[in-house]
Amino acid sequence: MHITRAMMNPLISPGQVSPSSPDLRVVSAFNAAALTWGDETMLLLRVAEAPINVAPDEVAIPIITLGPDARPNITIHHFHKSSPGLDLRDPRGIIYQGEHFLTTISHLRLARSSDGGHFTIDSAPALFLSENYEEYGIEDPRMTLLDGRVYITYTAVSRNGVCVALASTTDFQHFTKHGLILPPENKNVVLFPERIQGQYMMIHRPTGGGLGGLQMWLASSTDLLHWGAYRPLMAKRLTMWDNVRIGAGAVPIRTSAGWLEIYHGVNAEHGYCLGAVLLDLNDPSLVLARSATPLLSPETEYERSGFYSDVVFTCGATVTQTPLEGEVVQIYYGAVDETTCRVDIPLADILDHLLTPVPLGADFLVLA
Amino acid sequence: MHITRAMMNPLISPGQVSPSSPDLRVVSAFNAAALTWGDETMLLLRVAEAPINVAPDEVAIPIITLGPDARPNITIHHFHKSSPGLDLRDPRGIIYQGEHFLTTISHLRLARSSDGGHFTIDSAPALFLSENYEEYGIEDPRMTLLDGRVYITYTAVSRNGVCVALASTTDFQHFTKHGLILPPENKNVVLFPERIQGQYMMIHRPTGGGLGGLQMWLASSTDLLHWGAYRPLMAKRLTMWDNVRIGAGAVPIRTSAGWLEIYHGVNAEHGYCLGAVLLDLNDPSLVLARSATPLLSPETEYERSGFYSDVVFTCGATVTQTPLEGEVVQIYYGAVDETTCRVDIPLADILDHLLTPVPLGADFLVLA
Repeated sequence: MHITRAMMNPLISPGQVSPSSPDLRVVSAFNAAALTWGDETMLLLRVAEAPINVAPDEVAIPIITLGPDARPNITIHHFHKSSPGLDLRDPRGIIYQGEHFLTTISHLRLARSSDGGHFTIDSAPALFLSENYEEYGIEDPRMTLLDGRVYITYTAVSRNGVCVALASTTDFQHFTKHGLILPPENKNVVLFPERIQGQYMMIHRPTGGGLGGLQMWLASSTDLLHWGAYRPLMAKRLTMWDNVRIGAGAVPIRTSAGWLEIYHGVNAEHGYCLGAVLLDLNDPSLVLARSATPLLSPETEYERSGFYSDVVFTCGATVTQTPLEGEVVQIYYGAVDETTCRVDIPLADILDHLLTPVPLGADFLVLA
Repeated sequence: MHITRAMMNPLISPGQVSPSSPDLRVVSAFNAAALTWGDETMLLLRVAEAPINVAPDEVAIPIITLGPDARPNITIHHFHKSSPGLDLRDPRGIIYQGEHFLTTISHLRLARSSDGGHFTIDSAPALFLSENYEEYGIEDPRMTLLDGRVYITYTAVSRNGVCVALASTTDFQHFTKHGLILPPENKNVVLFPERIQGQYMMIHRPTGGGLGGLQMWLASSTDLLHWGAYRPLMAKRLTMWDNVRIGAGAVPIRTSAGWLEIYHGVNAEHGYCLGAVLLDLNDPSLVLARSATPLLSPETEYERSGFYSDVVFTCGATVTQTPLEGEVVQIYYGAVDETTCRVDIPLADILDHLLTPVPLGADFLVLA
């Protein structure tokens, strides 16, 4: 398989992104939705920001409150690191006296490129926090072109939970928010780029309690706002590379062999990896093939150490026709929850990887 | 307030219910949906069954598998109580090497009465496990009459999670299952008994992870199958009787003052209690009043000790016109996750309890 990381990786680093407020600094620009739009590649970046001027013995939590005119106000809460009941083990959030807070606050920012490598990043947010269900941030967008409109699914975080919200645009200048489309706790939603048997469809990743959880499900809709027909799609595989958690990544790509979904899987040894699954074109609940090994694992320095180490995570891919390799899938991915990178893999290679019979090892027998 | 527990409580005990299979014994008949149907009160009981012939040093887990004809087969898994990695602390379930299993398996059974006190219990299940999403049982139903059809929302449990499913009937003889209407993890769904502003509405209780969770939300639908417009309704109150978890109980009752919802709240001292909340008739997201103290707490012997001690929990109530007290709310409730009981409270007393201003103590000031 020809796996080519972009020479210029990381393509986008936090230092290239201007903060949304003088009280904040950009710590990450990652997990970007991707869409081919005219002659350009559009990325919708997740930009995570943290408070400035934090004393070394303190941790600071940014929280957005909405004023009467729905204008967001940033409040910074400072905690002394030695405060009783403060849990600092995860750099992404703290737990204080049983309540969870995020150490950064995310919004969505546009970047565009004519070559898929050099990106011009907007100086202001495309989508910012404006609803109560977004008070802790908006994260990990995916973009899908449907009926001439670009639909954006994203994670909306508030004190009431981690939910999935929908927004849309037709011009990347004016955005409309459509509210929550899934209750807590859920994330990693991708919309299929066309109706299937007359229905809109999504893959989602409920984050449940003791039973199930951290696995991929399907749902259907006739209006994109109301969803039903919930059914499990695929589970973790307890003895393979995706044994801790899985979730959809890029929007499904139509191929002659089926819907190609690039997803993330986590294992204790390698962290967040990317793999692929092939779903039946007419009934995506049928899994035709699934990566026996990851397509991409954290291996380079920029994928192995940073804000959250050992992470490659995708929210979007594009497909480009090339003279030598035919269709190439360009997977944009966040590295270590900090930067935006790209890896190119010929579509034919991914399909070979999926459809070549795997030698029947013990793992495969157990899970076939 | 006149709170009258039925003299005959418990009205239904597990010993009165015949098992669904010779391999099982009935351990609980509780958490019943309730509906006035012609001249009768219909209860749809949750019947929980456990394996028979379990050695004293073993715990046994019943699991339903569906045969090729969708006929359920019961498989009993035995675990030695001293097995490494076995967690037996909760009588409702075990955790074995990180996986959760239930110690009982539940189905739904009809009981009917002409006086709301003496019930005739069907000898066979009304709704049994027949879908993959029901393999660990179906639990805690609520019944709502809408457009001439009785809709049943219930908790469907499987290895893939705790979800909410919908079924319906027009005659209590033939039941149709409509599939999952909410993804995991969610439960405690009640449908409002009429459309509001043209929409069907529900209260639900997502069971999330770190943020939010165990609080009550609204959702809307135009077809009862696809749901959206998710929004938080009410939170736990950290210094009051409902500070650990809350969830909808009976189907909302239309009153002149608003929708009356009897809900459960949990606190460490008293266990599961029942209280009330009044919601605006035209916009149920507006909370007009909420119990400062419980309507019903576990106090009697049959509410204090049993399968899961200190629980009163409702899935249904009826309203009866009486000569002396006017409209009386008859709340059917499960006691200690084991029996079915009833408590009667005049509607006027509940509304007084809700609408009388509470002296402003510290708790109230904090949470107003």
